[in-house]
Amino acid sequence: MNERAIPLDAETKAVEQPDHHRDELRLWLRLLTCTSLIESEVRRRLRERFDVTLPRFDLMAQLDRAPQGMTLSDLSRRMMVSNGNLTGLVDRLVSSGHLDRRTSEVDRRAQVIRLTDLGRSEFRAMATEHESWIAAMFADLSRLERDDLMLLLGKTKGSARRAAGRISG
Amino acid sequence: MNERAIPLDAETKAVEQPDHHRDELRLWLRLLTCTSLIESEVRRRLRERFDVTLPRFDLMAQLDRAPQGMTLSDLSRRMMVSNGNLTGLVDRLVSSGHLDRRTSEVDRRAQVIRLTDLGRSEFRAMATEHESWIAAMFADLSRLERDDLMLLLGKTKGSARRAAGRISG
Repeated sequence: MNERAIPLDAETKAVEQPDHHRDELRLWLRLLTCTSLIESEVRRRLRERFDVTLPRFDLMAQLDRAPQGMTLSDLSRRMMVSNGNLTGLVDRLVSSGHLDRRTSEVDRRAQVIRLTDLGRSEFRAMATEHESWIAAMFADLSRLERDDLMLLLGKTKGSARRAAGRISG
Repeated sequence: MNERAIPLDAETKAVEQPDHHRDELRLWLRLLTCTSLIESEVRRRLRERFDVTLPRFDLMAQLDRAPQGMTLSDLSRRMMVSNGNLTGLVDRLVSSGHLDRRTSEVDRRAQVIRLTDLGRSEFRAMATEHESWIAAMFADLSRLERDDLMLLLGKTKGSARRAAGRISG
């Protein structure tokens, strides 16, 4: 969308596509590029180094932060994926001894999922390497630049949340 | 990975997980949050407003920038998806009259895909709204803040590329 092949006439262009919208589009495309770049590299390294998929790593990361365990619905909401997609992943990790699944003590219809000691220890070994990969990805930014980026992304998050909360359009 | 349930002993922590790695991890998680937030909102609006999927919109956006057309391999490389996943999408858009597919004049084994007039006009109507959605997502940032963010993301892109180019680890 950056370079239009067939130019619109000048008036339409001025009304419908003011220049500052182009800036924001470029900003969004760059944000997307950064995320895709880092994510695909993390995905590749997890596979090559640990033979682990990104969804599996993300699932274990969620559970590592929840020693009391989580229900499938909690996990699904946190990871923004459907219950259906999670179920197979959880089944496989229960079979391999990385997760423990038992009936909730507070709600007998719900099942609570936890990392086993094996799961936690394997996850933490991966997480340590993962952290150093991420640190290397941002290595060219000074401490001050990282702080600035953190603040600006915080502002972007708030702005996008507000815009998303509005009626579509 | 932000809050560990069972703290590691202090020495291991200092050696393996220096504080600045935590900062970079938080930065990465925030980058990911911003991207997911905007992307899922765009996906939702494209569906509700135009009954169009994000991959379809992205495909048409690539072709809008290439009036001379693109081969399936070019498209696949640009969009970072497999040829297999693209083929079905292209087939459907050829059937609906949005795309035109013909044998390349320079390489008779390759097929060149182009937007038809219908495809281009439908895409541009969507692109105009899409641009205004994106502008709204970044509306809380001042012009200066957007410029800063653009620069810092440019630096991040370079840094991540360099890190990804290195041998894994």
